[in-house]
Amino acid sequence: MSIVPPFRVAFLSGGAKSGKSTLAQRWAEALPPPRLYVATGEALDEEMAARIAHHQRARGPQWQTWEEPLALAAVLHEANGRYGVILVDCLTLWLSNLLTHDHQFGHPESAADQFCKTLEGLTTPIILVSNEVGWGIVPENSLARRFRDLAGRLNQQVAALADVAVLVVSGLPLYLKGRQIL
Amino acid sequence: MSIVPPFRVAFLSGGAKSGKSTLAQRWAEALPPPRLYVATGEALDEEMAARIAHHQRARGPQWQTWEEPLALAAVLHEANGRYGVILVDCLTLWLSNLLTHDHQFGHPESAADQFCKTLEGLTTPIILVSNEVGWGIVPENSLARRFRDLAGRLNQQVAALADVAVLVVSGLPLYLKGRQIL
Amino acid sequence: MSIVPPFRVAFLSGGAKSGKSTLAQRWAEALPPPRLYVATGEALDEEMAARIAHHQRARGPQWQTWEEPLALAAVLHEANGRYGVILVDCLTLWLSNLLTHDHQFGHPESAADQFCKTLEGLTTPIILVSNEVGWGIVPENSLARRFRDLAGRLNQQVAALADVAVLVVSGLPLYLKGRQIL
Repeated sequence: MSIVPPFRVAFLSGGAKSGKSTLAQRWAEALPPPRLYVATGEALDEEMAARIAHHQRARGPQWQTWEEPLALAAVLHEANGRYGVILVDCLTLWLSNLLTHDHQFGHPESAADQFCKTLEGLTTPIILVSNEVGWGIVPENSLARRFRDLAGRLNQQVAALADVAVLVVSGLPLYLKGRQIL
Repeated sequence: MSIVPPFRVAFLSGGAKSGKSTLAQRWAEALPPPRLYVATGEALDEEMAARIAHHQRARGPQWQTWEEPLALAAVLHEANGRYGVILVDCLTLWLSNLLTHDHQFGHPESAADQFCKTLEGLTTPIILVSNEVGWGIVPENSLARRFRDLAGRLNQQVAALADVAVLVVSGLPLYLKGRQIL
Repeated sequence: MSIVPPFRVAFLSGGAKSGKSTLAQRWAEALPPPRLYVATGEALDEEMAARIAHHQRARGPQWQTWEEPLALAAVLHEANGRYGVILVDCLTLWLSNLLTHDHQFGHPESAADQFCKTLEGLTTPIILVSNEVGWGIVPENSLARRFRDLAGRLNQQVAALADVAVLVVSGLPLYLKGRQIL
């Protein structure tokens, strides 16, 4: 069995289809079950539904899945202590949901701050997946600019409190901090 | 002369104008001639033609150049054993060509899988250049989304079977796997 | 106090909201005052003005600020020898200004080359911040393509002559070259 150094919060970010979810899952599967997968994606169209179903099949039956597009901190409070590991996939979809749901959960920045406070109080190891979205030309759309600023801000906050942080490129991790996992 | 550790498959990816082609060429030029440059770009407009001509001049006369926008696996089969090194520049343009040529070469995913199988059977060292295209806001255009998913998938496949894989940033390599070259 | 290894030119690049400006400032503040902040941004709209004011407040009173959207080489000549450290934030905004000001400062490529020559002659340590803008889908807008080519070219030039170069991701540095700072 692989040796996983103890961590409380592990963070993986990367571009689209960079292999970050697969690597996050591999890390989680080196920790004892039961394992919780928190999906922040909403199946708003067929393309999304197909992606979600594909990922669910890939995880197999050893995982429990909770879908939560908005109340992420509440979900973590509820799950804490009940699982061997929690995997949240992904933070950028969650931010996008917050932005498009009319601030019913308060300003996204406040929700992000509250989420980070919740992270610090968890006793169950947690693995967080996020997207890099700010490496292109400045978007003309102001909502897209707001989103990428929010995503960059949250990625910085989570990486700062994580024990392990990696940038995933072509399926392989570049370590930003922490000791190598697996 | 520089010392190049033996590799079968070397992989370089990076953003636009990151210096990945220049670095790939430097790696190739530390291996014995004759050298084959496989260009996947098509000179569809003046901007592209100027880029291609500029790169050809930069390589100089020690290189042979084959242009092949689509049948990349066939080209590698034909070139194998006849050169000291093969450089393919680049995989993302090839995927883009496959996508826009009405699947006359089958589904791009199948072509990518077949290409990876061909890579595994080569005896000539090969250097593969690819682009990172999935680090921005999700494109509104569905073909662009399909393209970046394809590119991410192929980058993962090639990095998995490569001996050496780097991310090139500002002309400098970040090693994802393998021992340092040059 | 932190130990900063001697450097003449330090280079930080990264995506939007990656924490590169904060890290650059931390590096500068480990060097003796007085410190010069060269802002290349122009407050063309409220969004920009708010960003600039926010960053100015964050730096505090120990910094002097010069705003210069175009004549960057001239500013460096003038500032050289008068400060403990110079921080330029950021090169990509400067390139964008050059592109949109009708070439009154000559071709952007020439301005970039002249800027790099100026860098080589400085005696005051300088820290340069830049953006990664070429990691998304190829922009349809030809000016945007020209901009990202210019930015990639300048990033390569500056990284080549820098003592220290990092890619900043989620607030954390990946070292491209040079010894660790702080």
